[in-house]
Amino acid sequence: MTNTRAWHLKSRPDGLPTPDNFELKEASLAELGEGMVRVENRWLSVDPYMRGRMNDVKSYVPPFQVGEPMEGGAVGKVIESRSPNFQEGDTVFHMYGWRESVVAPAEKLNKVPPLDVADEQWLGNLGLTGATAYFGLLRVAEAKEGDIVFVSAAGGAVGSAVVQIAKARGMTVIGSAGGADKCQWVRELGADAAIDYKSSPVVKLLSEAAPKGIDVYFDNVGGEHLDAAFALARNNARFAICGMIDNYNAGPPPSFRYMMRMISARIAMKGFIYTDYLPEMSDFYRDMGGWIAGGQMQSRETIHEGLDSAPEAFLGLFSGGNIGKMLVRL
Amino acid sequence: MTNTRAWHLKSRPDGLPTPDNFELKEASLAELGEGMVRVENRWLSVDPYMRGRMNDVKSYVPPFQVGEPMEGGAVGKVIESRSPNFQEGDTVFHMYGWRESVVAPAEKLNKVPPLDVADEQWLGNLGLTGATAYFGLLRVAEAKEGDIVFVSAAGGAVGSAVVQIAKARGMTVIGSAGGADKCQWVRELGADAAIDYKSSPVVKLLSEAAPKGIDVYFDNVGGEHLDAAFALARNNARFAICGMIDNYNAGPPPSFRYMMRMISARIAMKGFIYTDYLPEMSDFYRDMGGWIAGGQMQSRETIHEGLDSAPEAFLGLFSGGNIGKMLVRL
Repeated sequence: MTNTRAWHLKSRPDGLPTPDNFELKEASLAELGEGMVRVENRWLSVDPYMRGRMNDVKSYVPPFQVGEPMEGGAVGKVIESRSPNFQEGDTVFHMYGWRESVVAPAEKLNKVPPLDVADEQWLGNLGLTGATAYFGLLRVAEAKEGDIVFVSAAGGAVGSAVVQIAKARGMTVIGSAGGADKCQWVRELGADAAIDYKSSPVVKLLSEAAPKGIDVYFDNVGGEHLDAAFALARNNARFAICGMIDNYNAGPPPSFRYMMRMISARIAMKGFIYTDYLPEMSDFYRDMGGWIAGGQMQSRETIHEGLDSAPEAFLGLFSGGNIGKMLVRL
Repeated sequence: MTNTRAWHLKSRPDGLPTPDNFELKEASLAELGEGMVRVENRWLSVDPYMRGRMNDVKSYVPPFQVGEPMEGGAVGKVIESRSPNFQEGDTVFHMYGWRESVVAPAEKLNKVPPLDVADEQWLGNLGLTGATAYFGLLRVAEAKEGDIVFVSAAGGAVGSAVVQIAKARGMTVIGSAGGADKCQWVRELGADAAIDYKSSPVVKLLSEAAPKGIDVYFDNVGGEHLDAAFALARNNARFAICGMIDNYNAGPPPSFRYMMRMISARIAMKGFIYTDYLPEMSDFYRDMGGWIAGGQMQSRETIHEGLDSAPEAFLGLFSGGNIGKMLVRL
């Protein structure tokens, strides 16, 4: 086996991506030399941040290259190993997603910790998704017991985890989501209030749900939600800027009517990537492992079947089509 | 003497203030009871933040009240005292500006430290202006030797101080100002580069002046300057949000094309008021006093003569009419 089927970037999108930007074709596999491991992927993650990698701009991860295979989080099984650190049957997390299999250097693979959870959790609450929620809420925004927390895209993968971590730590949580079904799910996760951003201006909904204002905003979307957070921030509020899905694609740049409140309310806001906190992953596994074992972390997945469906799964992220974590099962 | 001439807020502005919003008339003075002090004002400060106080919105300082005297920083001389803490002839700083004299409780007055400087410096580099620059740059933005610092309104009162403090601490400084004269002044203050925001888009000018990007942005204006700072921020850049004069008045809310770089560059931004740092004022007086004594702090003033000119001085802040600190001399 010297080839694998892999999604390649065919062209860069201008605004919202379309199926034409992707091409499924054969990619060659490396030789299984000394220190190399062959992995067959079982689950692929598609995430909003990948939209940024489709542009040709310098960012925290290099852009995808036109004509080359795409990358992303994936969980697979070791099927052949020439490294002493991996054995056939090991479950590994790695970044060689968007393809069926890979031959990779051992140091690019991560054996998952010995917890009794389903494989796909390593892409969800115990993976990038959960770590982003955990470090963003507790480290970047320094959220603490008693805080009033607002989180956007609260029915999405990261947002769902933020809601539940905040409740596990004794905070009041207001989640925003699009539509009654998602809002119902956000309430089931334990949120004290859920607002449907499709029903009214966010600033109006938030001022009703949080009459005393907010201490923390966990931002997944930017735009109108961020402006509402400016409007309702209490003194010394902290905003963790995780994503701005409203800005990823086409349309006019976002404008802010209430941004001047940064000064009067002394708002602190900071962008982050969960990998900034890799040295603290043991804290994350301890706490998140405990919450999962204690039944405090629910999760839902929107699962697409088969490698062929990967672009459709990815594009669904931008149409609000998913509840919870969007995954591709191979 | 039971009255004083004082500027009153006649009406709230809608957008840019006009002379019609102000009314000069008699205001009554309090009785010179036990613990009270009579002060005759010599210098009045007019500052951009006062625009916010003309609106009827909750902020870090309460709004001016229609029909009541306005307030603001002022330096005066004690002419009569019934407090053991003040003597006739003392120079005091206080917030009873926009009027000729005041009878105030002793605890509302601040005797200036024993430094051999001109009285108006207590409204400038040794006052609100200098303290805002000092704490914003060194505490909020945590600027340090070797950093590349961008400051907007660099020819203004706070901006001029930021440029010079940054140079005194070994930073590279790029200042933005409107027009060739102001840019020349910014260079004379020691800035490594001055960009004229009226000549080209700020993002273009800044990318030329700071080809390696910026570590710190000291924001006095918001809008297009802030967006350029987003575009050019290096990893872990810090933005101190001091003012958004672009947003104080009418016009569409500011929009941001490059705000998503907050995530990839891990930008941290924070709004502040210098009074947040009052417990550290001794550090400020030590450092600023030393820089002034050492000839490292130049200052320029735009001086308007007489109480009648106060609204004109204030309105000049929004038309870019001043270089350095805008003052009214009585």
